Amino acid sequence: MTELEKFINKWRPKVDQQLEQDLNQATLDEDLNAMMKYAVLNGGKRLRPLLTLAVVQSFGRTITADILKAASAVEWIHSYSLVHDDLPAMDNDTMRRGKPSVHALFGEANGILVGDALLTGAFAILSDSRSNEDVQTRLDLIQALSALAGGYGMVYGQVNDMRNHNNTDDNNADIGVDWLLSAVHRPKTAALLTYASEAGAMLAQQRSVQTHLRQFGDSFGVAYQIQDDIDDTAQASDTEVGTLPHIIGIEASRAQRDDYLQRAQQALQQIETDVATFDPALLNDFLNLIGD
Amino acid sequence: MTELEKFINKWRPKVDQQLEQDLNQATLDEDLNAMMKYAVLNGGKRLRPLLTLAVVQSFGRTITADILKAASAVEWIHSYSLVHDDLPAMDNDTMRRGKPSVHALFGEANGILVGDALLTGAFAILSDSRSNEDVQTRLDLIQALSALAGGYGMVYGQVNDMRNHNNTDDNNADIGVDWLLSAVHRPKTAALLTYASEAGAMLAQQRSVQTHLRQFGDSFGVAYQIQDDIDDTAQASDTEVGTLPHIIGIEASRAQRDDYLQRAQQALQQIETDVATFDPALLNDFLNLIGD
Repeated sequence: MTELEKFINKWRPKVDQQLEQDLNQATLDEDLNAMMKYAVLNGGKRLRPLLTLAVVQSFGRTITADILKAASAVEWIHSYSLVHDDLPAMDNDTMRRGKPSVHALFGEANGILVGDALLTGAFAILSDSRSNEDVQTRLDLIQALSALAGGYGMVYGQVNDMRNHNNTDDNNADIGVDWLLSAVHRPKTAALLTYASEAGAMLAQQRSVQTHLRQFGDSFGVAYQIQDDIDDTAQASDTEVGTLPHIIGIEASRAQRDDYLQRAQQALQQIETDVATFDPALLNDFLNLIGD
Repeated sequence: MTELEKFINKWRPKVDQQLEQDLNQATLDEDLNAMMKYAVLNGGKRLRPLLTLAVVQSFGRTITADILKAASAVEWIHSYSLVHDDLPAMDNDTMRRGKPSVHALFGEANGILVGDALLTGAFAILSDSRSNEDVQTRLDLIQALSALAGGYGMVYGQVNDMRNHNNTDDNNADIGVDWLLSAVHRPKTAALLTYASEAGAMLAQQRSVQTHLRQFGDSFGVAYQIQDDIDDTAQASDTEVGTLPHIIGIEASRAQRDDYLQRAQQALQQIETDVATFDPALLNDFLNLIGD
């Protein structure tokens, strides 16, 4: 069992428990509450909160109750994005993780509203700090999350992804690799992983290496998305134009992925050089999740 | 010219300027930027930011650049709520303030995404504090806004309003006055006005009377919504069931409205008793906006 597997076995149930506890208090309305829980507590991997917690532990810091709660906020954002992405006007997916998607089960209006409530709720979680000393950290987390989940990150990426979907093979020539990586993959997928990684540095009070963790999260995130597209292509389920394997082929996509994995490793090496207490084993295991 | 009219003439252009300035920096994407600006800079009254600023001024405090920016965040929330409420799956309104609504002009997917970007952006505005000393105030503002815009306020009210729209005259008996006020009017309309009023107390560092300003905002908000429904009914444009005038008639609705206006006045009197520097004239003018 890898360090990461042990870590996931220990912390994923705690993340789920934290999410359920906060969701139970997220609204006065029973139906809205049930729909929000349906959207979040559906067997997600919790990759983003776990990444934050892994960064904290890699610095030898204790994961406190406050840190666990703060780390869970990004999952509210990730969950809302899935609910809104599934909507008929967006990707029109009626299934999510083997069950009906939120709008398929509860209707389109509720799909929009559940997403709005989860998005808003993420900031309720982050601003609910019991300990006075880390007020500035909380505000910095909110500043980072609002940028990377919004117009500088996820929403920006989704706007471009919609443009991408609206393209056809005929005008596919307009889509370059650089555009796909910088305008879709990076903001849509890597941005929240960048936030999650950076949040770990903030919560562990390791600001001097925050930029390296930003670099790690960004490179990990882009590699993660490329792998996802490679897997889809291999399963022959990919009928969409405008993915990296579609444009440059599987082999060149693997090379791109490995290039980003290497950048992520370099970021970890840099942190190891700078911070004596830093153990890169756990975060290296995150990189090992990606590959052939 | 009332105190409030002078105040609006002075501060509404500054609020608009602040909104435009921040919107210009809200995203890397030109199209998303243009759509966000279309959604916000469309001649709104700016009632909520102006209420916050009026509360600050009523305590004799200077409205600084930081306070102006913080006060503007609620308008991002109000604007996103209009964009999402207009969507086909919600109220299906193709016009807003005499122009095509966001989804009517830019498509449904963009309507959802523009709303998401504005909602997220509100928290970017609130967490962007230049002055170190009011970090705790910012966190408290975020905590209050996320509750009152989300599952404890606006989204909660919209969920109930959708239920209300889905009712027909046949089952209208299920809708009581208490339910309409507490589950629709209060969360959907009054919650953001409650936040705006309370935010003024926080920004003016007048925490001892924060609960009175919460009471003022809440009562003002409910009265404001009742008046809106009375006006709609008077114009015979109200074909909807489930409004207060529809259920209890115009005269009884006026009595309810006046009851809430009186509660708001009582809150102001209480603040006057508690805080020597407080001048209620401006906030009384807000109440005078409502009436026959």
